Amino acid sequence: MKIDIHRLRRDIEELGRIGRDENGGVTRPSFSTPDLEARAWLRSRIEAAGLAYRVDGAGNIFGRLEGAGKPGAAPAAADARPAKTVMAGSHIDTVVNGGMFDGAAGVLAALECLRVIKDGGVRTVLPLEVAAFTDEEGNLVGDFLGSRAFLGRLKRDFLEKELTSYGRPLKDILKRTEFTVESILNAHYAAPELEAYLELHIEQGPVLETEDVPIGIVSNIAGKHYRWCSFTGTASHAGTTPLELRQDAFLGLADFALRSTQLVATHHYGSMVTVGKVQVTPGAFSIVPGKADFSFEFRSPSAETLKTLERVLFNMADDIAATRGLGFSSRIVDETKPVATSPRLTEMLRTECQKLDIPWLMMPSGAGHDAQILAEAADTGMIFIPSPDGISHSPKETVRWDDLEKGANLLLQALVRLAT
Amino acid sequence: MKIDIHRLRRDIEELGRIGRDENGGVTRPSFSTPDLEARAWLRSRIEAAGLAYRVDGAGNIFGRLEGAGKPGAAPAAADARPAKTVMAGSHIDTVVNGGMFDGAAGVLAALECLRVIKDGGVRTVLPLEVAAFTDEEGNLVGDFLGSRAFLGRLKRDFLEKELTSYGRPLKDILKRTEFTVESILNAHYAAPELEAYLELHIEQGPVLETEDVPIGIVSNIAGKHYRWCSFTGTASHAGTTPLELRQDAFLGLADFALRSTQLVATHHYGSMVTVGKVQVTPGAFSIVPGKADFSFEFRSPSAETLKTLERVLFNMADDIAATRGLGFSSRIVDETKPVATSPRLTEMLRTECQKLDIPWLMMPSGAGHDAQILAEAADTGMIFIPSPDGISHSPKETVRWDDLEKGANLLLQALVRLAT
Repeated sequence: MKIDIHRLRRDIEELGRIGRDENGGVTRPSFSTPDLEARAWLRSRIEAAGLAYRVDGAGNIFGRLEGAGKPGAAPAAADARPAKTVMAGSHIDTVVNGGMFDGAAGVLAALECLRVIKDGGVRTVLPLEVAAFTDEEGNLVGDFLGSRAFLGRLKRDFLEKELTSYGRPLKDILKRTEFTVESILNAHYAAPELEAYLELHIEQGPVLETEDVPIGIVSNIAGKHYRWCSFTGTASHAGTTPLELRQDAFLGLADFALRSTQLVATHHYGSMVTVGKVQVTPGAFSIVPGKADFSFEFRSPSAETLKTLERVLFNMADDIAATRGLGFSSRIVDETKPVATSPRLTEMLRTECQKLDIPWLMMPSGAGHDAQILAEAADTGMIFIPSPDGISHSPKETVRWDDLEKGANLLLQALVRLAT
Repeated sequence: MKIDIHRLRRDIEELGRIGRDENGGVTRPSFSTPDLEARAWLRSRIEAAGLAYRVDGAGNIFGRLEGAGKPGAAPAAADARPAKTVMAGSHIDTVVNGGMFDGAAGVLAALECLRVIKDGGVRTVLPLEVAAFTDEEGNLVGDFLGSRAFLGRLKRDFLEKELTSYGRPLKDILKRTEFTVESILNAHYAAPELEAYLELHIEQGPVLETEDVPIGIVSNIAGKHYRWCSFTGTASHAGTTPLELRQDAFLGLADFALRSTQLVATHHYGSMVTVGKVQVTPGAFSIVPGKADFSFEFRSPSAETLKTLERVLFNMADDIAATRGLGFSSRIVDETKPVATSPRLTEMLRTECQKLDIPWLMMPSGAGHDAQILAEAADTGMIFIPSPDGISHSPKETVRWDDLEKGANLLLQALVRLAT
């Protein structure tokens, strides 16, 4: 039993034309006009596959294939619990000017798997569902709106007060949909209990390509620590202030960026540190910078390493400030803990890779995914396929179709195993 | 014969109230309303001192004290050249939210010197003039409009096409004055031939205060080299791109800023290097910077060092780019050569310091001054007095009055020596 890569490719390319923007990318944030079109398209594909279409109060879309254990085949006792569901999915929303594989590949690979299972006449014990979660990209009110709602992890206050990235409240955006803050808050009551959740996703990084391996099995999803930081010195005349008498805030930042990168690269392989945003004040040719504000983030698959890095890196910043006669301050902007995938599922994915004769690599995910939310409620596993040149969130984002074929076949075998 | 520091202080404080802004600084760019008021005030002070007031076509203001060699005392031959003028001055315009000493101290100290010479009945051979040059700060079309016009160094095309820092053409700004592009271009025809030009100025840096010396005698005015530079790498996901696979443009800049500073500080004492303005693209928490644009300037009192630095520093940038897998490019924004003061005048200033028992330091000027323009046409000398905390271009800019007294007395002795 194999997936049909041509059919899967046609689906991905069809969906990829919805929300195609003038820069050659896909711009399809949740509840935008193209997203509403994509939702209708996905519904039609689910229904065409003979799956039971369902949408919850948060706009999460599901296509269900009942298992042999379905109540009705043999009438269940009144107090019988419904069979747990084996779910696979991802998301179909995109960032602005993003690619057509981030999210879509996982949803449509799962749909293809269920089609193959159904068309092959395979009767699983447990029901299977394909899922497309709303706003994984966080264009509305933070990442993972749909999967958080699916688990009932959202607060009314947050949904009512937080502004979307469009600067308007969520309820304004919801007006064009059938959903409300109320329905989002209630979405989890209709959620099936999960046996397992699997997500296929593009890696969005260069590791698999660099290692020349077609499949990554995700060991865990990195935790992260975001701070907004400042070195403060003294703005002075660049022509009249000798180097040895300056308090140059930018040189403090330069020193910190280099030394923190060197430390993490040398002593914490697999962790990341990034200075992504920089504001130098006053910011003129002939003025020594008096202030350097910058974003500073680090990530690690290990909770212990995250703690160590927090201590060591900010001590380093304080030391640099003291040595250079500067001030240093920072505030935490966001912080998430690493999330482990299920050892049972990763073991099973490795076994299936061996059976299929597919090379694989165990690796952490540095990016966040719906799987990290679902992991709170179910055994969760993730399958990565290579991102050529490591590119994602870009019109240049792509996949090699034979990698996707391998990944989707792995997903297929895993789903059948989990549901029987 | 001594200057009257109380009278000089009163003048500086009176002028310092004209254009006082809401942030406690002085905002008096040339041809602004406060500048027009300051010009009227200066004229009244020149006339009150019994000096001959004159304004040229560029708005440069002069107060003249004739010397004994004046034609008319003994009628000159028709082909006799008029006696050369000994001039001292600076400027009365300011940057936005600047201080009340930058420029004003030099103009009013020169005025005080001429008052003392006149009131003391000293008959010099050569005529003396106090000068206040228009727009030294370059709020209109580049630095030194007045002194450039005084020497006839401006081009019609530049004055007609260049926009002022207000975004409007110069001729719009001139409408509220008696001056025109034509009169600016013709200003130099009325300029007297100079025997020497002396300028007293605040140091605008921390050297004299750090060395605890009240007088700096300027050996030369540093040349500078301004470039707008870019390191280009690849923007990528900060969570999924391992440190060793990144092309982080910002780390290229950080490396260059630190290493160039270290090189200049270690091997080229007295030269300066500054990264003052930084733009990191795309500039977000979770994106590895794909591009870092920045201003890069270096200055040196030595033309040879400037050449060496240009070669060594941009080789260094290319090396860093190559090592880090980045691109590097740059374009020259501005470039000036170092300007030497007159050895005759610096020697004379040192001798006068010894006579007055004032400690002095020979030093370069890192900032530009009208003196560097005037040096093209006359022997030029500069006297620095300390800037407490090195502060200038700020409401906190100040002087110690006894330093100013020493500087003005030195100027007085020098002017008398030069004119007799």
